[in-house]
Amino acid sequence: MQRVCFLLKVRQDRLAEYRERHAAVWPQMQEALRASGWHNYSLFCRDDGLLVGYLETEDFAAAQEAMARTDVNARWQAEMAPFFEGLDGRPDEGMLPLTEVFHLD
Amino acid sequence: MQRVCFLLKVRQDRLAEYRERHAAVWPQMQEALRASGWHNYSLFCRDDGLLVGYLETEDFAAAQEAMARTDVNARWQAEMAPFFEGLDGRPDEGMLPLTEVFHLD
Repeated sequence: MQRVCFLLKVRQDRLAEYRERHAAVWPQMQEALRASGWHNYSLFCRDDGLLVGYLETEDFAAAQEAMARTDVNARWQAEMAPFFEGLDGRPDEGMLPLTEVFHLD
Repeated sequence: MQRVCFLLKVRQDRLAEYRERHAAVWPQMQEALRASGWHNYSLFCRDDGLLVGYLETEDFAAAQEAMARTDVNARWQAEMAPFFEGLDGRPDEGMLPLTEVFHLD
């Protein structure tokens, strides 16, 4: 099992709206994440828009690829893209994992 | 159960040493964390030293207070303090939790 942590940057002026959208993620999107192997998945934000993602999965590359094959993910990512800073493509393609330096079960 | 995510900043010029230290956290420190209610606790770092902590606990304030009462934590935090940027006090007192905006089990 892999523990994955990634960072993204939400535009500060759209952070309130980003939070509202994530309080009501489409059920179909949630089902697709689960079916694609995204478990114990949380997003946290700082007031300036720095966003931290944490999830547990068997294989992050496979979990990303499985989501990338779903129609609902393409629709969701297209709606989310304008919320982010410094992204050329889709938000889910900008998730660069950090390095785990410590773990305690 | 609370999911907690916090950020700290390790000095980039000491990041390699910080990683080495965290590959060998004192067993007594690990036992104190567990006994104080720190579960599924991971630290992740970015190349510039940005450090993300993630843990699960019944009550983060109580878990922090329980650790603060241990001698081993005082010794560990004193050794870790010089690794960090922008801290006035101990690293464990600079852990400011981010806001959770999404969770999927």
